[in-house]
Amino acid sequence: MLTINEHYLKLQASYLFSDIARRVAAFQAAHPDVEIIRMGIGDVTNPLPQACIQAMHRGVDEMGTVAGFRGYGPEQGYGFLREAIAKHDFQAHGAAIQADEIFVSDGAKCDTGNIQELFATDVKVAVPDPVYPVYLDTNVMAGRTGQFRDGRYEGIVYLDSTRANNYVPALPEEQVDLIYLCFPNNPTGSTITREQLQTWVEFARENRALILFDAAYEAYIRDPELPRSIYEIEGAREVAIEFRSYSKSAGFTGTRCAFTVVPKECRAFDSQGNRQLIHPLWNRRHSTKFNGVSYPVQRAAEATYSPEGREQCKALIDGYMANARIIRQGMAALGFHAVGGDNAPYVWIEAKEDSWDFFDLLLSRAGVVCTPGAGFGKCGQGYIRLSAFNSEANVITAMTRIKEALS
Amino acid sequence: MLTINEHYLKLQASYLFSDIARRVAAFQAAHPDVEIIRMGIGDVTNPLPQACIQAMHRGVDEMGTVAGFRGYGPEQGYGFLREAIAKHDFQAHGAAIQADEIFVSDGAKCDTGNIQELFATDVKVAVPDPVYPVYLDTNVMAGRTGQFRDGRYEGIVYLDSTRANNYVPALPEEQVDLIYLCFPNNPTGSTITREQLQTWVEFARENRALILFDAAYEAYIRDPELPRSIYEIEGAREVAIEFRSYSKSAGFTGTRCAFTVVPKECRAFDSQGNRQLIHPLWNRRHSTKFNGVSYPVQRAAEATYSPEGREQCKALIDGYMANARIIRQGMAALGFHAVGGDNAPYVWIEAKEDSWDFFDLLLSRAGVVCTPGAGFGKCGQGYIRLSAFNSEANVITAMTRIKEALS
Repeated sequence: MLTINEHYLKLQASYLFSDIARRVAAFQAAHPDVEIIRMGIGDVTNPLPQACIQAMHRGVDEMGTVAGFRGYGPEQGYGFLREAIAKHDFQAHGAAIQADEIFVSDGAKCDTGNIQELFATDVKVAVPDPVYPVYLDTNVMAGRTGQFRDGRYEGIVYLDSTRANNYVPALPEEQVDLIYLCFPNNPTGSTITREQLQTWVEFARENRALILFDAAYEAYIRDPELPRSIYEIEGAREVAIEFRSYSKSAGFTGTRCAFTVVPKECRAFDSQGNRQLIHPLWNRRHSTKFNGVSYPVQRAAEATYSPEGREQCKALIDGYMANARIIRQGMAALGFHAVGGDNAPYVWIEAKEDSWDFFDLLLSRAGVVCTPGAGFGKCGQGYIRLSAFNSEANVITAMTRIKEALS
Repeated sequence: MLTINEHYLKLQASYLFSDIARRVAAFQAAHPDVEIIRMGIGDVTNPLPQACIQAMHRGVDEMGTVAGFRGYGPEQGYGFLREAIAKHDFQAHGAAIQADEIFVSDGAKCDTGNIQELFATDVKVAVPDPVYPVYLDTNVMAGRTGQFRDGRYEGIVYLDSTRANNYVPALPEEQVDLIYLCFPNNPTGSTITREQLQTWVEFARENRALILFDAAYEAYIRDPELPRSIYEIEGAREVAIEFRSYSKSAGFTGTRCAFTVVPKECRAFDSQGNRQLIHPLWNRRHSTKFNGVSYPVQRAAEATYSPEGREQCKALIDGYMANARIIRQGMAALGFHAVGGDNAPYVWIEAKEDSWDFFDLLLSRAGVVCTPGAGFGKCGQGYIRLSAFNSEANVITAMTRIKEALS
C-alpha cells in the first residue's frame, strides 16, 4: 500500500495569499464598482527594465538559429551570469565570493524551500516570527515539526521579532542548528546592523549551526552602513548560505531568476561530528533535481549588471521606495506605529486591533488590500503589511482612501 | 550541531554524464584535431520552432509594457497553457484529462525528482533497470534505499528490462508501492503496448500502488496502436501520474517547460489505510516550493499547439526520427542487435563487450560519443545508447566512421 508523507497533513489548510484572494474576490463580487488597490501580496507592478527586454529578445533570437541554439545549460547557471553576480553583487562590496560558489535558479522560493533537504530530519530549526511562510512549511513537510498548536508548530524555535526588539530577534537561548534570517525583512521591513549580524555569525560558529540568509530585498538598502550581504561579515563563509533574487530588484516575479551562494568552506557535520562541506551536497541536489534556468532569462538577468540595466533597475527601485515613504509617512500621520519602508519595500503597521479585522476594514471601507500580519506568525498578530509595489498614483489614492476610511 | 542528510553519502560519486564529459574532454585534449560527434547525452540540437520563437518574442514585449506586464503567475501554470495541453495532448487522444489536472513546471526532471516527497519514507519503490538515473537518485536522497552494493541500491525492487522480455519488464512478484515506468523508454527506446500497460494499471489497482509514468518521449510514437498516454488505459486515473515535457517534442531543453498530470481521483493512503487524494498534496507542494514558469516560456509552449507550431514540431521530430533509422539500420548492418529508434529517439545496441570499453572504442577510433548502457543500471551492462539528436550530416558521418572503426 502506497502511504503518503503524513507530515503534509500537519500543514495549515490554507495558504495566506489564497485566503486573501478569496476575501478580495468575495468583496469584489459584492461591490463590482469598487476599484480595489492591491497592496497585499509582494508582487512588483512595473514592466521589466528595457535592458532586460532587449537582452531576452537577443537570447530568444539565438534559440531560433542553428548557430545560436542552446540545449541543456549548466544546471548551476551559465558562466556569464555567475561571473557577473560574483563581481557586481559581492566582490564590489568587499565580499570575496567566486563564480563557482553561485548557483543560479528559477526562484528564491524554490531555493529556500529546497535547501533543508540537505540536512537531517532531527536538526533543530529556528525561524523568525513573523516570517515568510515557506521556511516553516517546507520544514513541516520534511517532518521537522510536531503538530500545529496554538498558532505554532511544535519543535520549532521561534525567534520573536517585536516592537520591543525593533524587529530584530535576540539570539536563541537553546541549541539550534539551522537558522533562517531575512534582512531587509519580509514582512516587517526591518534591517540588521553589521554588529548584530556579527553576533549571529559568531553564534553559528560557536554552536556548529548554519545561517540561511535570505537577502531577496538587498537592492532596497539605502543606508550605506548596513551590510548588503552576510559575507561582508568576518567568519560568515563557513556558516552561512545566502539567497538572492531578481524578483524584487529587477521585476522578475513573472520572469523567474534567482541565485543561492554556497561558499566552498561552508560546512555542516555528519552524525560522527566530522565536518562535511555543503557545496558538493547542494551541487548534487541542484544537478539531480533541476535542469537550469531558461537561457533567454539568464541573458535578461545578466543585463541587470550592464550600465543601462543598473540605471533602469535603480529607477524601478527608486519608484517603489518613493511609494514606501508615502505609505509610512501616511500611516504615521494617522497615528499608527509604522516601521520599514526606508530600506525595504514593505511597511509594517501596528493595527491596534486584530490583523484580519483591520484587513477587512481596509478592504471594505477603503477598497485597499493589505496583508494581515497574523498570516506571518503569532508575533504578526495585531499588525498589517503594506507593500510599496504599485504605481505612485495608486499609492496616493490608497492613502487618501485609508485616511478617509479611518477618520 | 547541524547534521547532514546522510543518505546523500550513499549516492554514487559521479553522475553518468559528468563521467562521459570527463572522458571526452581528456580525449579531445589529447587529439585536438578530431571533430568529435556527440551522440551521448539526449540533448536536442535543432533550433526552436519559429512559432515558439515568435510567441516568446511577443511575451517578452508584453513584459516590457505597463499594460502587458505579468508578475507572479499561477504556480500551476497559466490557464491558456493548461487548457491547450488538456485539449491537444489528452482529450484529442481520448483521455479525459481536464486543465485543472495539469501542473506546468520547468522540467520533467524536477517533477519526476520531486514527486516522491509526497510519499512515506518506507514505501517500496520499483524502478526499471536500465533507467534514467534521477528516479533512483532522488529516492536515495530521501532515504528509501540502503547502501549501493554490487551495482544496485539495497531496498529497491529493480524491474529488469532485457532482450529476453523485449525491454518491457514483467510485473513484480513482491509488493511494491511506487512504480516508475518510462515509455517510449529512455534509454532502450522500447515501447509498451496497450495490453501490457493495462496489466500494470490492474496491478497498481490490486496492490494499492501508484504508477509514475514518464512520457517525455511520447511525441516520437509512430505506431498508431501504441498508447500515447497512460490515461488511454481504463482505470488509470486513480493509479497513475504522468510526466510530459517540451524538451524533446519541441526542443525546449534550454528553454525549460514541462508538465505533470495528477487526475483528481488519483489516490494514495494514510497509515490507517484511508484513501488520500494526491492532487491537493501535489498542489500544496507545487505552490509552496515553486513559483511558476517564466511567462514568455509558457507562451512559447502554447505555440507548439498552433497549426504552424504543430507542423514545425512534427518536422523537428521527423528529422530526428530519420536519424534514428540511419543509426539502427547502420548498427544492424554491422551485425549488432539494436532496438528502439522506431518510436523513440534512442537506439539501444548490444555491444558484445563491456559498455565502457565499447564507449572508449567508439570515442578513440571513431570520435563518436555514445552513452554506456552500464551507466543506466546493471541490465545496461554490455549495451550502449546512441541518440538521434544531431544533424543528419553528423549522423551519416558518425555511422561511416563507426563502420570503418569496426571493420
